[in-house]
Amino acid sequence: MIIDIHGHYTTEPQALHTFRDKQLAGLADSARKPGSTDLGISDEVLVKSVEPQLKFQKERGGDLTIFSPRAGGMAHHVGTEAVSIEWTTICNDLIHRICTLLPDSFVSVGQLPQFPGVSPKNCIPELERIVTKLGFVGVNLNPDPSGGYWTDPPLIDRHWYPIYEKLCELEVPAMIHVSSSCNPNFHHTGAHYINGDTTAFMQLIQGNLFKDFPTLKFVIPHGGGAVPFHWGRYRGLAQDMKRPPLTEYLLKNVFFDTCVYHLPGIELLTKVIPVDNILFASEMVGAVKGIDPQTGHYYDDTKRYVDQVKNLGEKDLHKIFEGNARRVYPRLDKLLAKRGR
Amino acid sequence: MIIDIHGHYTTEPQALHTFRDKQLAGLADSARKPGSTDLGISDEVLVKSVEPQLKFQKERGGDLTIFSPRAGGMAHHVGTEAVSIEWTTICNDLIHRICTLLPDSFVSVGQLPQFPGVSPKNCIPELERIVTKLGFVGVNLNPDPSGGYWTDPPLIDRHWYPIYEKLCELEVPAMIHVSSSCNPNFHHTGAHYINGDTTAFMQLIQGNLFKDFPTLKFVIPHGGGAVPFHWGRYRGLAQDMKRPPLTEYLLKNVFFDTCVYHLPGIELLTKVIPVDNILFASEMVGAVKGIDPQTGHYYDDTKRYVDQVKNLGEKDLHKIFEGNARRVYPRLDKLLAKRGR
Repeated sequence: MIIDIHGHYTTEPQALHTFRDKQLAGLADSARKPGSTDLGISDEVLVKSVEPQLKFQKERGGDLTIFSPRAGGMAHHVGTEAVSIEWTTICNDLIHRICTLLPDSFVSVGQLPQFPGVSPKNCIPELERIVTKLGFVGVNLNPDPSGGYWTDPPLIDRHWYPIYEKLCELEVPAMIHVSSSCNPNFHHTGAHYINGDTTAFMQLIQGNLFKDFPTLKFVIPHGGGAVPFHWGRYRGLAQDMKRPPLTEYLLKNVFFDTCVYHLPGIELLTKVIPVDNILFASEMVGAVKGIDPQTGHYYDDTKRYVDQVKNLGEKDLHKIFEGNARRVYPRLDKLLAKRGR
Repeated sequence: MIIDIHGHYTTEPQALHTFRDKQLAGLADSARKPGSTDLGISDEVLVKSVEPQLKFQKERGGDLTIFSPRAGGMAHHVGTEAVSIEWTTICNDLIHRICTLLPDSFVSVGQLPQFPGVSPKNCIPELERIVTKLGFVGVNLNPDPSGGYWTDPPLIDRHWYPIYEKLCELEVPAMIHVSSSCNPNFHHTGAHYINGDTTAFMQLIQGNLFKDFPTLKFVIPHGGGAVPFHWGRYRGLAQDMKRPPLTEYLLKNVFFDTCVYHLPGIELLTKVIPVDNILFASEMVGAVKGIDPQTGHYYDDTKRYVDQVKNLGEKDLHKIFEGNARRVYPRLDKLLAKRGR
């Protein structure tokens, strides 16, 4: 079974964008506020909207995508905390509907109603709702709700502890995923995403978060940002800081996905990061939409790269494509077991 | 000849730190300002201070290091523009003295008196001084003078054009190198440096800077941050943005160094980045000081990694170790030619 742990709903119906425009226009002119949070999107429209994902899933040999709202769309820095809460509820509800309509193809992961400067504690009600009532198996946690100015405390700060406590209690992993950037220095998918990944990993080296939360699990997307390419640097920095080897110190709790869009990158990832810490993912339809002229295949068809890596045995591939996902997302495993998969 | 294009003066005498303390203390209490910018450091003390670098250079088979002030020490965000100017002059003068005392081992690269929110135009007098009067062959340009809040415009903005004009006129390349971070989210050598590299490269994809400055040359250090690991992502993003292939669009002007501290990273770098765009560097004595227990050698002994890469022929190695440096730093080439090297 091939599980893609990183898919976003990037093909939303126009009605969602129209709602968002009205919601944000309402900040400036309350007369423009949307009258209702009912978007009037039919089941048929929802199913139709994810046809691109289903087509790629089938063509590329995938079975199941862990599906969450568009990462760039979370935009936690926009508006007010109330706006973030309303928007998050709507986005999560759409994901829930899609995953209920197409349970063989999609499993839900949610966004959180974060807002810069506000305690992540305030996200707990929505986290509990989507996990316990709607059956979500994970969440995306934004390490920079400011959208590129990094004004909230680092992930190792006690500021974040309330949400970690709840994640552990619910047995839900978090993908550490920034949203869009309102800082003109950071292109969102080309700089902010990758920097967010690199930054989060380095914060984890600095702190000792997993001493306090031994069962907390983080997935760092986009192959871990710059981390595997600079694995010697990170091993060396940890050593200079008198930390234990990274495999012991962080890799019981930290996992990387395979959203790296060329074979040499995937080869490096699988060479330096233990196979138990790599989860298959493509983030399609996402950051890079084209076909690589060097291969004739889509850049984000990452399964092809993983399949081409030499020295990965059958057991390794099973871990990357399915086993690790079921271990890191225990609620996914239970869900699949219940369905006989 | 082995040229290491990335060395910082990280072993400064105590007198420099004492001066800096007084200089910054003077911001709060003018009575504490240093009485003079003469630090009273003798030539003997200066030569002694770079013994660690000379020892490593010899042991590792290096011949020449392109040497600049400590990158983290530039700290452009600290104090006032006047503080930055005074501090920069002092740091550059020390580099000049060292390179004059030890001309066979070190060639000078300077820092610029940048300050957040201030036009880089103000750096031109110091740039002219160090290049035309002191014989410096390059400069470090900080893309984020705010020290981790990224409040100045991106590198492709006209804000930066005056300094680019002067760099072109003087035939001097810039290494795009951030300084220390005052943002607690960014560990300086583990996150801010690498993010700075990644961010700069993505900015260059977004703009079309080298159309306006066809002879401008940038070195992106630390192996280009996350860029080579995500080379497929960057090729794909450029393609989605209707840019020409990156080799044509950027690689006539952008170069990467080899400050990547493990063999798999260097293997990836040399696999995806054309050999004409890779310059040997180690950044010793720098970010990572320890010995890698997996190899028994220093992490930052990057020559060992380059030497181990298969498929690099003699001509390739000559380019990486010497030829590219002489091409990217034309003033270095002239200097060496004059000295018969």
